[in-house]
Amino acid sequence: MSATGAASALPHRVAPTGIEPLTWRGDRVRLIDQTALPVEERYVECTTPQELAESIRRLEVRGAPLLGIAAGYGMALAAVGSEARTSEEMLSDLEEAGRVLSASRPTAVNVAWAVQRCLRSAGASGAEGVDAVRSAILTEAGRIAEEDAASCRAIGEFGAELVSEGANILTHCNAGALATGGIGTALGVIHVAHEQGKRVHAWVDETRPLWQGARLTTWELRKLGVPMTLVADTAPGSLMARGLIDTVVVGADRIAANGDVANKIGTYQLAVLARHHGLPFYVAAPCSTIDMATSTGDEIAIERRDPGEVSQPFGLRIAPQGTWAVNPAFDVTPPALVTGIVTDRGVARHPYRTSLRRLVGRAR
Amino acid sequence: MSATGAASALPHRVAPTGIEPLTWRGDRVRLIDQTALPVEERYVECTTPQELAESIRRLEVRGAPLLGIAAGYGMALAAVGSEARTSEEMLSDLEEAGRVLSASRPTAVNVAWAVQRCLRSAGASGAEGVDAVRSAILTEAGRIAEEDAASCRAIGEFGAELVSEGANILTHCNAGALATGGIGTALGVIHVAHEQGKRVHAWVDETRPLWQGARLTTWELRKLGVPMTLVADTAPGSLMARGLIDTVVVGADRIAANGDVANKIGTYQLAVLARHHGLPFYVAAPCSTIDMATSTGDEIAIERRDPGEVSQPFGLRIAPQGTWAVNPAFDVTPPALVTGIVTDRGVARHPYRTSLRRLVGRAR
Repeated sequence: MSATGAASALPHRVAPTGIEPLTWRGDRVRLIDQTALPVEERYVECTTPQELAESIRRLEVRGAPLLGIAAGYGMALAAVGSEARTSEEMLSDLEEAGRVLSASRPTAVNVAWAVQRCLRSAGASGAEGVDAVRSAILTEAGRIAEEDAASCRAIGEFGAELVSEGANILTHCNAGALATGGIGTALGVIHVAHEQGKRVHAWVDETRPLWQGARLTTWELRKLGVPMTLVADTAPGSLMARGLIDTVVVGADRIAANGDVANKIGTYQLAVLARHHGLPFYVAAPCSTIDMATSTGDEIAIERRDPGEVSQPFGLRIAPQGTWAVNPAFDVTPPALVTGIVTDRGVARHPYRTSLRRLVGRAR
Repeated sequence: MSATGAASALPHRVAPTGIEPLTWRGDRVRLIDQTALPVEERYVECTTPQELAESIRRLEVRGAPLLGIAAGYGMALAAVGSEARTSEEMLSDLEEAGRVLSASRPTAVNVAWAVQRCLRSAGASGAEGVDAVRSAILTEAGRIAEEDAASCRAIGEFGAELVSEGANILTHCNAGALATGGIGTALGVIHVAHEQGKRVHAWVDETRPLWQGARLTTWELRKLGVPMTLVADTAPGSLMARGLIDTVVVGADRIAANGDVANKIGTYQLAVLARHHGLPFYVAAPCSTIDMATSTGDEIAIERRDPGEVSQPFGLRIAPQGTWAVNPAFDVTPPALVTGIVTDRGVARHPYRTSLRRLVGRAR
């Protein structure tokens, strides 16, 4: 599953889906402005780490794995643009770029993780001169992207085995190509099942408050030609009661060692609804999402975002001026409600403390 | 509880909440334009049944009980405006007005019901001359409004007994003064509990796709001074898991003889979530909402509304052009998930076939 051969050739495309959320163009990064979707398919080009950091800040790039890839290419921009004549000068330029990138979205661990990975790689080839450092960074950035693409593909293939012919699959938020360097995680499962000719149909819930389901997942599934239906967040329970949903597949932002799944707000209530209706509820995420250092979800802080996202979505005033709203961005689904966690190394099942430890410990 | 004394005096105000969704002004009907809320508190005046029918058609007036009241006053407008010199001419004018009003929202049974009630009353006093007919219509219209106000108050009082001190009450959609001739049904319960000094806090879910929670319920609760917090429709499950909700109270559009409750889409999944978390789930509705002729919810057709309400709310494009969406307006909650049905004649509990029959059969 691992693919490193093409990494040094710096792949032009990151995602094999026809969707190009972020591509490396030799001297610049081209990315789709996700804030403009689905109304407009607008691309932004960044030629410096500063510009890329600005794009991250403006949420033009989102999705934990894709942010890691963006950061890697941000370091590549620094390496390509550096006028350093010694390894030391180059490393100093790279460290400065790393600081700028890491500050762009401090809560996203993937950004700092990719920056560190590039810096380690640069440091290791410092003795061989400035060109070797530049080349090492480019290789590392490409590798981060390729590894994520391979990881998505593996998740998709493991997950598709769990999907029956003609299944109606509900997904939440956007865990697709727009959030990763490949075919996505939850959407990767739908992607591969569709590719295998399983004639699946996707139910896409809108995912308030930021509408990632309505705005991004529908946009992706249309590109892929997967039949789908959009519904309001008030509808899934009723669809389940009417027998119109067979299985639920969602992504994850972080998975604790006990199997607690932190993901976009609304995930938890879908898991409860799935349980009530006897439906399987799967979480699809790479092993890198499993945080063995976090014992349970209680240790995961739930970010509270701007209440205006609820009361005034995209500038549309839907509540009286001054209405108090709360806007938790994530929730935690306990392992008891999770049928299986589909990773790039296989499917973990109860008891998760054991099965997750086994998967994370295993080399890919 | 019944109040007819003031009816012939034609009450200036319909609702004792400071909220005046619809008021009779002697020769015209003044109504708040609910399509403009909460951005603007705009009032519309209608001087003919035709104008009032147009307001109903434009959804400026909504809520089953309020539509019945509107229709009654629409008949009053016809009676006041008629130049008839005989009872026969007057009755003919009234029948014509009734046709116009009934056609304004054919699915709302309350409109036709109020029209028929006024026509019967007019017919009964036809022998006494044109002034007697006019007076009978005015009395009947006032009575419809007063009865609904009394009914809301009774629901509020029965319901408030079920609310504990400091309770966090989740409500869905808008079952308040804006939908009735009084303090509302589900919001009537919150209203009375607040009035009793129980220091309740309301959780208001936005209620996609039409945002009646965000737009209307928040607006009402602010007027009443009830502490409240607005959340996205993706949040209630997570709030329950964190122990932040104590009870759920919703309204109903129609209740079948077995206790199946048809109400705004999203109600059912809140009932499932309440059950999973061991929380009481109450439905508040007048006995007139209980339809003993409907044996179970299977006989209730679920209206599918314009998919554009989901994909393009209030003109805001949140999904790609051409995205297929479904938009069921209602869902059905089975009696097994309902802790109690709070009516104007008391609280019905399991088994509902028996308890509802008893309540409906009982005179108020």
